[in-house]
Amino acid sequence: MTNLEKKAEGNLSNKIKLRGIIAEDKEEIRNILLDVGNFTQVEVRVALSLIDERFKGDEDYNFLIAELENRIIGYACYGPSPMTNGTWDIYWMAVLKEFQGNKIGSFLTEVIEDEIRKRRGRLILIETSSKESYDATRTFYEKKGYRVMGKIERFYSETDDKIIYGKYLK
Amino acid sequence: MTNLEKKAEGNLSNKIKLRGIIAEDKEEIRNILLDVGNFTQVEVRVALSLIDERFKGDEDYNFLIAELENRIIGYACYGPSPMTNGTWDIYWMAVLKEFQGNKIGSFLTEVIEDEIRKRRGRLILIETSSKESYDATRTFYEKKGYRVMGKIERFYSETDDKIIYGKYLK
Repeated sequence: MTNLEKKAEGNLSNKIKLRGIIAEDKEEIRNILLDVGNFTQVEVRVALSLIDERFKGDEDYNFLIAELENRIIGYACYGPSPMTNGTWDIYWMAVLKEFQGNKIGSFLTEVIEDEIRKRRGRLILIETSSKESYDATRTFYEKKGYRVMGKIERFYSETDDKIIYGKYLK
Repeated sequence: MTNLEKKAEGNLSNKIKLRGIIAEDKEEIRNILLDVGNFTQVEVRVALSLIDERFKGDEDYNFLIAELENRIIGYACYGPSPMTNGTWDIYWMAVLKEFQGNKIGSFLTEVIEDEIRKRRGRLILIETSSKESYDATRTFYEKKGYRVMGKIERFYSETDDKIIYGKYLK
């Protein structure tokens, strides 16, 4: 039993099945993105387009699907940052509202970090928004050991900065 | 006569024809990228893949070609940053070595800035490397009014940071 499996015991995570993505997951993932409520139409479209890219053959988009009793309750998309040697991006992560607060995002993040370590990754980056509606997201990554590495003021819009979080892997 | 055309008088730029890209330009652009000498194989591949994306129908990759007597001597690729309202990226710019020092990069940058202004852009970003071989590139953007907005240490490799330059348009 791995450390992660041990950690999963005693909470919801021990009932969760993690797997890769299949093309048929797209509609369920769309529903999760809409359920989260934080994403604009454009963001949902971009998130789903990464699934399309993957099934067109772009293997740099890796997906991790969290399933509970044959229902997808969360997912993440991550991949190597283009033109880098050892830097990775977590492009997207979302968990159905009713399952938030059960450490599923935390579980996905740890599994991704382990996978990136295995693939000799050194640095993981996550870009997010300064908006109040992303307070929980930023707090989440700070708790997971990510720190602010850059801030592009008024990036998304006149009132919305981009915050770049990063974590160097040991 | 526009200001830019006036500015172009009296130097090489007045002989330069600017135009959009056609698919047949790809090989000449490859030669420019190789001529510059600064780009890795992977970087050249990524730069050229943006041309492919454009001709697959992705209109977010805009190209500006600088031609002198029917020969391409430089080019730039730029486009709106995904999921933003008014932020743009200059993804790539290269000028043949023998024509560097003739303000062609400066000319391309100004034309791009004008175009982005017309399209209601507010902010232009450029990502570049901390390596010594990019000293001239960083100095160039600083002279054009770009300032450092972020620095991701050890991004490209253990010894190569990413520097994010930006300029808010008036």
